[in-house]
Order: sequence, then structure tokens, then C-alpha cells
Amino acid sequence: MLQKLFFSLAFCALSFGTFAQDAYLNAESEDTDKVYPGNAPYEVKMYPQKFKAEKPKNIIFLIGDGMGVSQVFAGITANQGHLFLDNFRHIGFSKTQSADNYITDSAAGGTALACGVRTYNGAIGVDTDTAKVKSILEEAEAKGLATGLVSTSAITHATPASFIAHQPSRNMYENIAADFLNTDIDVFIGGGNDHFTKRKDGRNLANELKEKGYTVETDIEKIAKVKSGKLAGLTAEVHNGRTAERGDMLPVATSTAINILDNNDKGFFLMIEGSQIDWGGHASSTVYIVEDMLDFDQTIGKALEFAAKDGETLVLVTADHETGGMALTGGDMSTGRVKADYPTTGHTAVMVPVFAYGPGAKEFMGIMDNTDIHDKMKKLLLSK
Amino acid sequence: MLQKLFFSLAFCALSFGTFAQDAYLNAESEDTDKVYPGNAPYEVKMYPQKFKAEKPKNIIFLIGDGMGVSQVFAGITANQGHLFLDNFRHIGFSKTQSADNYITDSAAGGTALACGVRTYNGAIGVDTDTAKVKSILEEAEAKGLATGLVSTSAITHATPASFIAHQPSRNMYENIAADFLNTDIDVFIGGGNDHFTKRKDGRNLANELKEKGYTVETDIEKIAKVKSGKLAGLTAEVHNGRTAERGDMLPVATSTAINILDNNDKGFFLMIEGSQIDWGGHASSTVYIVEDMLDFDQTIGKALEFAAKDGETLVLVTADHETGGMALTGGDMSTGRVKADYPTTGHTAVMVPVFAYGPGAKEFMGIMDNTDIHDKMKKLLLSK
Repeated sequence: MLQKLFFSLAFCALSFGTFAQDAYLNAESEDTDKVYPGNAPYEVKMYPQKFKAEKPKNIIFLIGDGMGVSQVFAGITANQGHLFLDNFRHIGFSKTQSADNYITDSAAGGTALACGVRTYNGAIGVDTDTAKVKSILEEAEAKGLATGLVSTSAITHATPASFIAHQPSRNMYENIAADFLNTDIDVFIGGGNDHFTKRKDGRNLANELKEKGYTVETDIEKIAKVKSGKLAGLTAEVHNGRTAERGDMLPVATSTAINILDNNDKGFFLMIEGSQIDWGGHASSTVYIVEDMLDFDQTIGKALEFAAKDGETLVLVTADHETGGMALTGGDMSTGRVKADYPTTGHTAVMVPVFAYGPGAKEFMGIMDNTDIHDKMKKLLLSK
Repeated sequence: MLQKLFFSLAFCALSFGTFAQDAYLNAESEDTDKVYPGNAPYEVKMYPQKFKAEKPKNIIFLIGDGMGVSQVFAGITANQGHLFLDNFRHIGFSKTQSADNYITDSAAGGTALACGVRTYNGAIGVDTDTAKVKSILEEAEAKGLATGLVSTSAITHATPASFIAHQPSRNMYENIAADFLNTDIDVFIGGGNDHFTKRKDGRNLANELKEKGYTVETDIEKIAKVKSGKLAGLTAEVHNGRTAERGDMLPVATSTAINILDNNDKGFFLMIEGSQIDWGGHASSTVYIVEDMLDFDQTIGKALEFAAKDGETLVLVTADHETGGMALTGGDMSTGRVKADYPTTGHTAVMVPVFAYGPGAKEFMGIMDNTDIHDKMKKLLLSK
């Protein structure tokens, strides 16, 4: 308990430093950032609602970090009325509160979704007493399913970390990276190369991964060519850049991961994070939010494309919390222009949407706790 | 079209005056109003999810004016974790845009829900060419169903007006009141007595209603005693006061209306508006929003109580738009304290939640246009 208090306080003290330090906060919050000017929309494909099974063989779990209902609707507006999210008929709401705060951070929010426990802000895969709690990814792995993680942030950042690591503080990036070696995760693709290779303890985890049989790549084009085996894709020193810089890294990484994981006949669990919707919210930037929301939605499109063909895959989309208190104060559905105002640069407490498509989708209707999402996924995927 | 332009411009010009004039804007937007301090929670009853029929005989349609997801979650927090809304498993989202604006007003928003058409802001039951469009209430009446309207605002205010009147501008309160006489609505309860009795044209519509066979009462206790026949309850000169003044007028009026309408063997359509959630948003007052949200939820409880017993009633809850861009920036689920910030005193464009319980509820899943809600209600209730 004392240990928990220490890390909780340390997190509070560190978070301001982290704030100033992290790349995503270099973005200046200019007024022009509050208006997304619109762009040519991409085509949204609608998929059938019929599936082969009652229970899913695979789960693709997509987390839009900081994605509240306003962020979704900013995306709908920017794409002139439609998103791949239109395919989701089963909708619920997730209450995001953490064990020690009405407003969660991404670590406690991620841990609730990954492990099914409410914990203190800053905790990665541990409970309020800093005891390790198994994640759905680890539980799936124990049952012989294939597992994967994809994010645009460092793969060691709070949300993906919650699915694989157990550390008392989200800031222990090098410990989190080392925790990847304690698992047999099949595929992970994201930033964070420095946490694996430029470490204070002198270990080179990229080499250790290779010794364990992983293909380790840093180039997304090389990553996209991997079709089987174990894959570690570390596409940035820390975080991947914004969409202008990283391009379609997230949808490409998602399709790559799905293709590899689908080799396992027992099924798979894959978590994909659209990490930077949150960073747009912290920066009060509508442009940043919309760019990342549309990238995330196109990634959802890749998941749906597979799921519709496969017929045994549950696709879930939710958020860990909302960021920025985004208020849609202007726009035009016919041009895709969106204007928003932000009363805070932090997170808010509002419940976030849950969208489900595929076998088992009806379990995710109604208002639920974020921890219920873990419990429902576990019941559907692993209690056979 | 010129007529429409005139009224659209007139609405813009008038709206600022209406703003200053209306009672609800006398509330000062003090900082203390931004924090609801918490209160003893009321008990939330959970009802069964089994129903007698596939299609509903009755629809109870509840509109929380200005009720976005944050307003709902402020209510959940204030009532320490649970609302009657927890009973709703079928959830959707409604896109609220009007014909001429990304951000709707309550008139175009109400007309979309009532009549199934997108029209210009300010329009009451007319299309973009100011042509009358039949409302679901009028369509139900034509099929022999009983009909009713209940609101805490003047019953002539934009939302209830959209279900019964046809006027080019929401500000034509006396014309709207006269439109009630053109229908055979069975029950209406709300404010607006002045628009019926203190009119420029000298007509006394209360007397005309009596001549048509209505019981006309202004006292909610007398209204609550009416069990059959036609009832006009006009409980305030214009709008009813806040909850401290009007007490449980809304849930009492709702139960009264349901009991009378249920006398009709063909079924009924009843619209109930929680009008002042919107006014709390305009006033940037968390206290006002939460008080009205909890009053509205207890009214939903009355509808559910009847629907669960009846087994042939569809209960729908949605909003016309969100107001205030409410951002939940602090709170405590264990005490019911809620703090919010508001980047605007106007409406926002975000999609609003749709909650459905009862036969036909599954039609309201997914993302839809506000006009679809009219179309779905009509199909379920009137195409037999």
C-alpha cells in the first residue's frame, strides 16, 4: 500500500515533467489548429451483419486513446457523413473511472480494459497494491491463442503496456520493454525502439528478441512483408510522428499483424491503439484529432474487412477516456470542415462509446464499467 | 422560399432578444453553479427485458433537451453510479444537423424527430419551404391512437410545439397555441397558459378547449386526479420553474398522461420533454443541468414502470442536440459531486445518444439521422 502511494505520488510529480518532455506536446495550440478545413472523403464500405459462429474465435480490440463521442463525430463530419464505424450496430457506454480518481489516466484506463481491475492512475497491469494482474493477452497466450499489439505511440506507452507489462509506474519504459521478453507475444508493432536498444542496464532487447526467434524490423515496408513467425516492429525511436510523417503505418501494421496471427488455428487476440487522438486533445488541436481519428477509422476498416470475410472475429472499438472536453462548435457536413473548442488540456470523466461487430457483439450493449469489457472478452474468447 | 428566408432571418434577429427575455437566462452563471455538490441518491429499479409483442402498441418518447452524453454521465455521477437509464440495453446515436446549419436549434431538432424532415433552424412542423409536414402525433391520431404531450417548458415551446403545430417560426407562441385546437390531442400538460388565455387576438383558448370537452386545469394536484377524458394542464403562465419550485411536476404529469392515454385500446403516442437540461447548459450551470437530468431520469423511471408492466410499450429516450459543450472536469462517484466546464453557452453539433427499451428497441441501434427516429417510430407504431 505504501509502495502504491509512493508510485501514485511519483506519477503525479512526474506527469507534469512527462507532459513538457513528450514530443506530442511540442505542438503549439494555435487557434488555427481548432479548425479542420475539410478534405476529400475516403470511401466507407458497409459489411454484412451475418456471422458463422455464436462465439468469436478471434478478437480485434481497437482503442482510440482519448476518443469520446465528440472525437468520433468530428471524424464523421470530416469524412462528410460516414465512417467505417457506421458498420457497428451494437453500441454501449464504458464508465472510465480509476480506483483513485474520477478522471482516469491511460495507464489505469488501459489496465481496466486489459486486466479487468480498477487501479490507481499510473499503474501498468498491477492492482492498487501493486500486485501483478494477468491481462487478457496473457490469458489468451496461456490458452494457446496467438497475440499481438499495435500502436502509433511507443509500444511501451501506457495503453499497449497495460496488456503485457506489470509495473507500478507508466514511466518505467525500460522495465516495460523488458516485460515483453517475459511473454511469447507473436507480433508487436509500434514505436519505442530506444526502450529496447538504448537502455541504462546495457541490455539490447532487440538482440534478445532475435535470439528468441523474432524477426525484428524498424522499417514499416519491411514489416509489411512479414507473413509468419514472430515479429517485433519498432518503427520509431520513441513515438511515431503524426500522420503526415508516419503515413498509413497504423492500418498497414494492423493488416500485417492480422495476417500473421490468423495462422494460429486456435484463434488470436490483437489490441490496436490509435494513440494520438489523445495527443490532439491535449494540444487542443482539432486538426490533430481529426487526422488521427480518420487514420484510426481506416484502421477499423482493415479489421472489419478481415472480420467480415472471416465470420468468426469480434471487432471491438472503444476508448480509455475522453481528452480535451472537445465541443463541436462549428462545421459543415458537406465540406468536412470541423471547428471545436476545448475547456481543458486534460482528460475528462465522461463515459466513452463501445462499438461491437461480429459474434458476441450483443454482450457489449448498454452502460457498463470499463472492467466489464475485459470480463466479457475473456468469457467470449477463453471460456470454451 | 422567400418566406422561409424571411423567417430564418427573423429567427436569427429574434433569438438574441428571446435569449435576454426568457426566464431561464436570468440564472446567473456563477462559478459555484459549475459544481453540483452531491446529494442522497434515489433508488434505481431494474426492470425485466422480456416483452409481450414484437411491435409496440404504445410509444413513450422522452426528449432531454440539450442532453448529450456528458449530461447523462453528470446524472449518473450525481446519483452515485446509477440511473433508470441503466435499464436501456439498445443504444444508438442520432445526428442532429438541421437543413441550414451544422448546429440545430430545438425547433428544427424537434421537427426532425416529430415529422421526419430536416428543416431550417426556427421552423415548427414545416419544411424548408414552410409547407406543413404531418407529425408522428398527428399520424397516430389519424389512426385512432390516443396522443399526448408533456413538458416543463411552455407546452408551446419549440420541442413540444414541433409535434402538434405548423408555424414558420418558433416565436409565434400564440399561433402555436391555436394549433392545439386544430387537433384532437387527448392530453397535454406543461406551461404556456398565457399563450392560451392572454392573447392579442382576444381568443380565450382555455374556454375553447372546455367547449371541445377538455378538462382544463392549472394546478398539478388537480391535474393528477384526472383519470379519463381529454385534459389540458397549463401549470405556469409561461415556463414552469426549476425543480425547487415545480417539484415533481414532470414525473407526476407523465404518470397522469400515461394513465389517461392507456384507456385507448388502439394504443397511444406520448412525447415528454425534460426541457430545462438545455437551459442549464445555456447558463453554464452544472447544478441546473444535474437537477433537471435527475428529474428527467425519474420521469423515465415512471415510463419504464408502466412499460415493464404493460409489455407492449416502447420507451425511447433521446435529445434534440447537446447544449454547452459540457466537459466533466471533476467529480466523485461516491458523493455525487460533479464539476463541469463549458466552452460555449450555445448548442453543439455532437451526435446525441438514443436509448430504447421494449418491443422494437433493436431498431434504434447504430448511428442514425434524427429523422430516422421518426421513420422508425412510424413504421413500428402505425404500419400494421
